[in-house]
Amino acid sequence: MKLFKKILIANRGEIAVRIIRACKELGIRTVAIFSDIEKGSLHVRLADESICIGPANSRHSYLNIPAILSAAEVTDSEAIHPGYGFLSENPQFAEACATSGITFIGPTPENIRIGGDKAKARQVLKRRGIPVVPGSDGPVISEETAVKIAQKIGFPVIIKASAGGGGRGMRIVREEQELSHAFHMAQRESLAAFGNNEIYVEKYLPSIRHIEVQIISDGKNVIHLGERDCSIQRRHQKLIEEAPSTIATAKFRKKIGELAVRAAKAMKYHNVGTIEFIVDQEQNVYFMEVNTRVQVEHPVTEEVTGVDIIKEQIRIAAGFPLSYKQNQIKPSGYSIECRINAEDPEKFIPCPGRITLFSPPGGPGVRVDTAAYTGWVVPSHYDSLIAKLIVHGKNREEAIAKMKRALDEFIIEGIKTTIPFHKKVFNHPDFIRGNFSTDFIDRMSNGNVSNGHKIFEVVDSQG
Amino acid sequence: MKLFKKILIANRGEIAVRIIRACKELGIRTVAIFSDIEKGSLHVRLADESICIGPANSRHSYLNIPAILSAAEVTDSEAIHPGYGFLSENPQFAEACATSGITFIGPTPENIRIGGDKAKARQVLKRRGIPVVPGSDGPVISEETAVKIAQKIGFPVIIKASAGGGGRGMRIVREEQELSHAFHMAQRESLAAFGNNEIYVEKYLPSIRHIEVQIISDGKNVIHLGERDCSIQRRHQKLIEEAPSTIATAKFRKKIGELAVRAAKAMKYHNVGTIEFIVDQEQNVYFMEVNTRVQVEHPVTEEVTGVDIIKEQIRIAAGFPLSYKQNQIKPSGYSIECRINAEDPEKFIPCPGRITLFSPPGGPGVRVDTAAYTGWVVPSHYDSLIAKLIVHGKNREEAIAKMKRALDEFIIEGIKTTIPFHKKVFNHPDFIRGNFSTDFIDRMSNGNVSNGHKIFEVVDSQG
Repeated sequence: MKLFKKILIANRGEIAVRIIRACKELGIRTVAIFSDIEKGSLHVRLADESICIGPANSRHSYLNIPAILSAAEVTDSEAIHPGYGFLSENPQFAEACATSGITFIGPTPENIRIGGDKAKARQVLKRRGIPVVPGSDGPVISEETAVKIAQKIGFPVIIKASAGGGGRGMRIVREEQELSHAFHMAQRESLAAFGNNEIYVEKYLPSIRHIEVQIISDGKNVIHLGERDCSIQRRHQKLIEEAPSTIATAKFRKKIGELAVRAAKAMKYHNVGTIEFIVDQEQNVYFMEVNTRVQVEHPVTEEVTGVDIIKEQIRIAAGFPLSYKQNQIKPSGYSIECRINAEDPEKFIPCPGRITLFSPPGGPGVRVDTAAYTGWVVPSHYDSLIAKLIVHGKNREEAIAKMKRALDEFIIEGIKTTIPFHKKVFNHPDFIRGNFSTDFIDRMSNGNVSNGHKIFEVVDSQG
Repeated sequence: MKLFKKILIANRGEIAVRIIRACKELGIRTVAIFSDIEKGSLHVRLADESICIGPANSRHSYLNIPAILSAAEVTDSEAIHPGYGFLSENPQFAEACATSGITFIGPTPENIRIGGDKAKARQVLKRRGIPVVPGSDGPVISEETAVKIAQKIGFPVIIKASAGGGGRGMRIVREEQELSHAFHMAQRESLAAFGNNEIYVEKYLPSIRHIEVQIISDGKNVIHLGERDCSIQRRHQKLIEEAPSTIATAKFRKKIGELAVRAAKAMKYHNVGTIEFIVDQEQNVYFMEVNTRVQVEHPVTEEVTGVDIIKEQIRIAAGFPLSYKQNQIKPSGYSIECRINAEDPEKFIPCPGRITLFSPPGGPGVRVDTAAYTGWVVPSHYDSLIAKLIVHGKNREEAIAKMKRALDEFIIEGIKTTIPFHKKVFNHPDFIRGNFSTDFIDRMSNGNVSNGHKIFEVVDSQG
């Protein structure tokens, strides 16, 4: 068996740089693609070769399947790594790669299809005994059915688009009279955003943790790399992620890990993925969705396990078996990631523009994944994430101290970023105690501290 | 017991930044000192307070004891961290701190005195049964004695200044007729450089490894953090350091660690220090010298052990006991450091000037310790070290792959640096095999590869 000689990276920004790093360490040549405004970008500079695949608008460049496949053929690339976002969860793209004789570094098209159809994934896994939040068995066509299900499971409920993600196509319904309006709005939103008006209904659990498990499968064996806690979100967008979770006992960790492996096996999952769960205050675990890509927050798992997840993706796509057995995965210490976005830290509105000084933090236990540099112009066309700041400490207390000092020394001038927001979170007593749920940011914004009220039973705020 | 509230850092550059990081993580306020050309430096920007202590010439600023003590008093600093270089190994400074009621973060003045008097250290440790290179027992006053000793131990010999360091005040003598001239030259050089003409004589061992052991003592217990291999040197200046050493078997590691602890105990050593050894091809270990400061290369030990050496220094100076027992020190993986100097990579001549773009590498397993940033002017007055690039991999092979990709992605524009030199080393077959001695750089410069000839028995080139 042989690794690829050359990989095309169908992405941009920090994740393209991250993939180039893994390839270089594996001795694989890299091809960067770029839109015509990104010739000077770091991922282009660091790759061995690069090729312009279209104009700034990502529909014509980073989402342009024919252009990307041509670029792969022209450069003799044997495989394509899609990163996250863009085409990473597009089953047609995965199939088109196969048809062109190019290895898609990711799960099978069928895995991606199930992952992309949330109602279907729910159904498949429920049948295999994975607990799901009470709700509809598959898509709900009519308002009447939605009302019946809601009455049965009780309000509040949440209406979700099957094709949704990242908080889009979701509506919380607190009373029966709101349901009709919300149902049709969600259908319309979903149709506009995803070209599909499939909707399903779930019980809305108000005070929950978002906990996900990284899994890796070579088609024969599936292992998990422990949990990540991604409960610090704003409008369902993750902002801070940590591993392990402050609510995870050894027993809980074993249970959620086994559920994730079971879910992956039920889906015949291949390559790297994430099983997302919600966890209530009684530590009940409910399957939420499968993410069939590498995630933005994968570094916190890398820091505590020592596993290079991107290298594993590449190796598995090349036909190698898993590099690790489950009992070789021994998480150590505590890792936290802050997503640094080019946004106004109060209003969370994108703030693109020229970075006049970019001086990242360093020293022991600090990792920065970024494609930014002094003089770079953050484009307005893409995601506002410009850097991931990741720390690793012996315990959560040390990780928090490291993050605070790293945020303090991170100099980004010329644009606004979310660094001031992160500093507030890392000084908040509930965050420091590990006592929070997914509504933490709303509560913090309203000045609403728990005042010692236990939102969650924290088993290990020291990690 | 309490940690300090505020520490003054009597240094500049990357080590001042490194110490500020440790202080911030410990919740200690920091005071930076700076010479009048360094107001815009990163260590000044990152410290909580800063104070100008004199003009650029370090004799009037970073070596100006009264000005530094005044700065500490004015700012109510409880302790001073001297970093490395400058006043870090000046026993008068350590004593002056004590007299002023300020804690010197480092060993005792007596430890520093012995460390600074190489002939004395040799004598003290030889008496305690630590093997030393055959040579004079203490300083040699007359040429006649030097000749007698040389005849007894056999040529070649090396003449060293007791007060020397970093390669200064050393002369290799291959034949008796060269000795007289070399003896008087070394005396004169030592007098000029160190104000002291004390000289001693040792057997010169041509094909050796430079291996040192990090030790920590709280005055009651002494532990070691394993070895560092610092054999890649140019004119006795270390350029690349690694931990562990490719020639270290478990038995060797135990032996050299125990010797280092024994040496530290014999000296009644307090706080953090390094015992340097030379190791010949038969794995004979000879004590060389004690470094009574934190060393430039301390990060490789931090990476493999997880111990934050600067935090330990501070905690011990504040009266805390060691945070670790010897059996809790379990080195893991492999770490390498490259010193990136602002120098012409061919001639090793300093190249100060303005950095027009500084974009450090990142991602998993890469650490950068630096005070450089885009727009910073590297001053001509101080050491040319501008960044330390440190990698940590599962084994030496992975660490080398990481270092190669990190060197590739390190962008420093506007000045010349030693990055091209490091790239050559990391592509050299003897370096990759771990088959080298302290003359590696000379051999490489002459295009002299070992051609498969074993210079050293490598037990673990994969780490």
